[in-house]
Amino acid sequence: MQPYELSLTAAAAAIRAGELSPVELVDSVLERVERLEPHLNAYATVTAEQARHAARKAADDLAAGRSRGPLHGIPMGLKDLIDVAGVATTASSRVRADHRAQADSTVAARLGAAGAVLVGKTHTHEFAYGLTTPQTRNAWDAGRVAGGSSGGSAVAVAAGAATFALGTDTGGSIRVPAALNGVVGLKPTYGLVPRHGVTSLSWSLDHVGPLTRTVEDQALVLAALAGHDPRDPASLAAPAQDYRPGAGEDLTGLRVGVPRNHYFEHVDTEVEAAVRQAVDRLQALGATLVEVEIPMTRYIQATQWGLMVPEATAYHERTLRAVPELYQVDVRTLLEAGELMPAGDYLRAQRSRTLMRQEWARVLADVDVIAAPTVPATAAKADQETITWADGTVEAVSDAYVRLSAPANLTGVPSLSVPVGHDAAGLPIGMQLLGRPLGENMLLRVGHAYEQSQPARVLAPAA
Amino acid sequence: MQPYELSLTAAAAAIRAGELSPVELVDSVLERVERLEPHLNAYATVTAEQARHAARKAADDLAAGRSRGPLHGIPMGLKDLIDVAGVATTASSRVRADHRAQADSTVAARLGAAGAVLVGKTHTHEFAYGLTTPQTRNAWDAGRVAGGSSGGSAVAVAAGAATFALGTDTGGSIRVPAALNGVVGLKPTYGLVPRHGVTSLSWSLDHVGPLTRTVEDQALVLAALAGHDPRDPASLAAPAQDYRPGAGEDLTGLRVGVPRNHYFEHVDTEVEAAVRQAVDRLQALGATLVEVEIPMTRYIQATQWGLMVPEATAYHERTLRAVPELYQVDVRTLLEAGELMPAGDYLRAQRSRTLMRQEWARVLADVDVIAAPTVPATAAKADQETITWADGTVEAVSDAYVRLSAPANLTGVPSLSVPVGHDAAGLPIGMQLLGRPLGENMLLRVGHAYEQSQPARVLAPAA
Repeated sequence: MQPYELSLTAAAAAIRAGELSPVELVDSVLERVERLEPHLNAYATVTAEQARHAARKAADDLAAGRSRGPLHGIPMGLKDLIDVAGVATTASSRVRADHRAQADSTVAARLGAAGAVLVGKTHTHEFAYGLTTPQTRNAWDAGRVAGGSSGGSAVAVAAGAATFALGTDTGGSIRVPAALNGVVGLKPTYGLVPRHGVTSLSWSLDHVGPLTRTVEDQALVLAALAGHDPRDPASLAAPAQDYRPGAGEDLTGLRVGVPRNHYFEHVDTEVEAAVRQAVDRLQALGATLVEVEIPMTRYIQATQWGLMVPEATAYHERTLRAVPELYQVDVRTLLEAGELMPAGDYLRAQRSRTLMRQEWARVLADVDVIAAPTVPATAAKADQETITWADGTVEAVSDAYVRLSAPANLTGVPSLSVPVGHDAAGLPIGMQLLGRPLGENMLLRVGHAYEQSQPARVLAPAA
Repeated sequence: MQPYELSLTAAAAAIRAGELSPVELVDSVLERVERLEPHLNAYATVTAEQARHAARKAADDLAAGRSRGPLHGIPMGLKDLIDVAGVATTASSRVRADHRAQADSTVAARLGAAGAVLVGKTHTHEFAYGLTTPQTRNAWDAGRVAGGSSGGSAVAVAAGAATFALGTDTGGSIRVPAALNGVVGLKPTYGLVPRHGVTSLSWSLDHVGPLTRTVEDQALVLAALAGHDPRDPASLAAPAQDYRPGAGEDLTGLRVGVPRNHYFEHVDTEVEAAVRQAVDRLQALGATLVEVEIPMTRYIQATQWGLMVPEATAYHERTLRAVPELYQVDVRTLLEAGELMPAGDYLRAQRSRTLMRQEWARVLADVDVIAAPTVPATAAKADQETITWADGTVEAVSDAYVRLSAPANLTGVPSLSVPVGHDAAGLPIGMQLLGRPLGENMLLRVGHAYEQSQPARVLAPAA
């Protein structure tokens, strides 16, 4: 087994035991990056020299008895919306061609302080405003979309080109590519992870979170990310927690909500079968399954777009006027649409969100988690624009990808996507676990119990 | 001295001592209402029969040894935006002609449970959307505006037609009429007092708070009002506090911020002199005066209107389409203007508010309170539309009234208006004390110390 194949938990254990040096690990991942990048294009920027330097420093510190904890010497990718001092934050856009960040974002600073080593900045759908990341290839099939907007992060982690990565999630942008590339993605509770220094798409819906190869790995990254920062106005003053799931698989006494509406409608049969099988596994582990009714589903799409579109346009106001031709046409069209939206529509969306939060709180008072598909289908073909469902309904790929993800953004509840197998074509399928606000521990416990009950996953073939 | 002349604190003490019965007090206030209403028109609805019944019940309870605390048997007025079960909430509008509230608002329920007796519902500028309350007369001069929008509440308290009252404050609507009628008005910290069951003007700026004759009285009412209610999405989970100010007048060690900009610009010379004299009094009581720079003042007006106008229109969307002719022309014009506002303008106002909150927090880290005029002039004449300042600048009365009040609504910080004398025409002048979020105790302490150092105030002549 090569070091790049190790999960974060396993790599950290090997480093702690002195069986692996940060230099070996970072070199192994960098070689993997070099070999795969021509095929995957997961990275906007690879910081190989700085990474090698940081790895040597990490090794020296260890030799001197100074460990910074489980992330010490671990190679990571950061979505290219996340500022790292001295490195470009391109947002995968020509608008940012000459950009260079002056200071670290809060999350980059926290991961750096925890000893993680930056391998590079991963590609995003331009400015995170889309769900495919067209410049990056799916790690399991080069003819399929990576998903987005955190496509580069998901592909890098899936292919061994980073041991973990960060993404951002406004309408599914961590969980969708995680599901489509067979890795674990967490959209934390709104406000748990500070967004200072992270390029905004829609500030009332934006979240930063980890992409990893296992649920255990999530806990190690989240512990470094969480915690109040007054420079993000939405940052919560939540107390620090130990997010590591316990060793036990037993879920006795847990109530798992299974949606009777919305989440299994217009869902591919193979996806539905894999998710229902995973839910049965949770039951076999001791959980009680409870049918739940998802509230206000007919308002999800209007509320998501009603909030996101004008907030995104407000953020891009100046550059959209100054250099509209530098945006990709899909993103520019959405930004221009936002200029025409009346305040009343935005306010209706805000009010709808408030009601939706209240209704979801009622549902989540009765169950510990809700289990549902992350994405209604596996990765679409690169040039595919729509999905045709069994009843003949045609849906835009983007709408299909947002439909099941957006409720967690609108309500702020945490959502963890875990791989639950593959379809007949070998493409990964994801199940999301949704929980109560600040209930990340519960999601990680359930996800970890499920994961332990399954055979170990393998890296994506990736070219 | 008649019972209606007693402050809340004095009336509560007399009731507690058995020297005054709730029946005597309520009857005295109802007689005063009957005598003054033809001149003042402070009330939209007088609930005399229910009040007499409640007073007898309160007296019986006392006779049986059951006291509900300092509000037991105290007659109050509630602004006619505040639901009381079985009573109309007219919002002083023809749109609500046939309205009858099904249930108590949170504040009405809490005051009822504390033993307060409803005398009636006080007039508001229609739907709280204005600063004059044109149907009500100033308690000190019938030819002058009451101020607004809680004009009826301020006039009733000033004239002895209620022992205390509640108002609402979106851009100054408690503090402006308090200042113009010589009573004490508190706009609490945003979220401290729940708004469930209170007609909304602009939900991100709306506050409910007390109007009283003394600062001590404020503490008794606030203690009954404060506390979390999940039915108001903005309600804070702040712990209960004893708001009663101590007996001491000594302000040694306190830092009082005196604005070098904004709050003393375009302010009537008599108002400025009275406020500066009151500030000198705080210094004489031991406080240290510190010059402070008010941040982002050129954005106050645009931010206030940018938030309020579309939120108000969203609330009135249906009735504005169904029965536009039932609104007063000033209010209808504002509501119609809101229909034309783009989402981008609202979002710019939201972002400006966020920055303003941060900047104000910096200023308030350095001082305990900020002292400033509440309103830049005493009560305008009933038909007066503009104020002409010494430098020849002409300003709409409404703009002048909002200008010094709005910062506390935008930032959510508490603001207490206390009377600081009269102009040469005998019209009252108010000083506002602004404090840190949840710093009501500090405001009440400073306001009470000032008040104790002054001669006792008298009721308004009121006709």
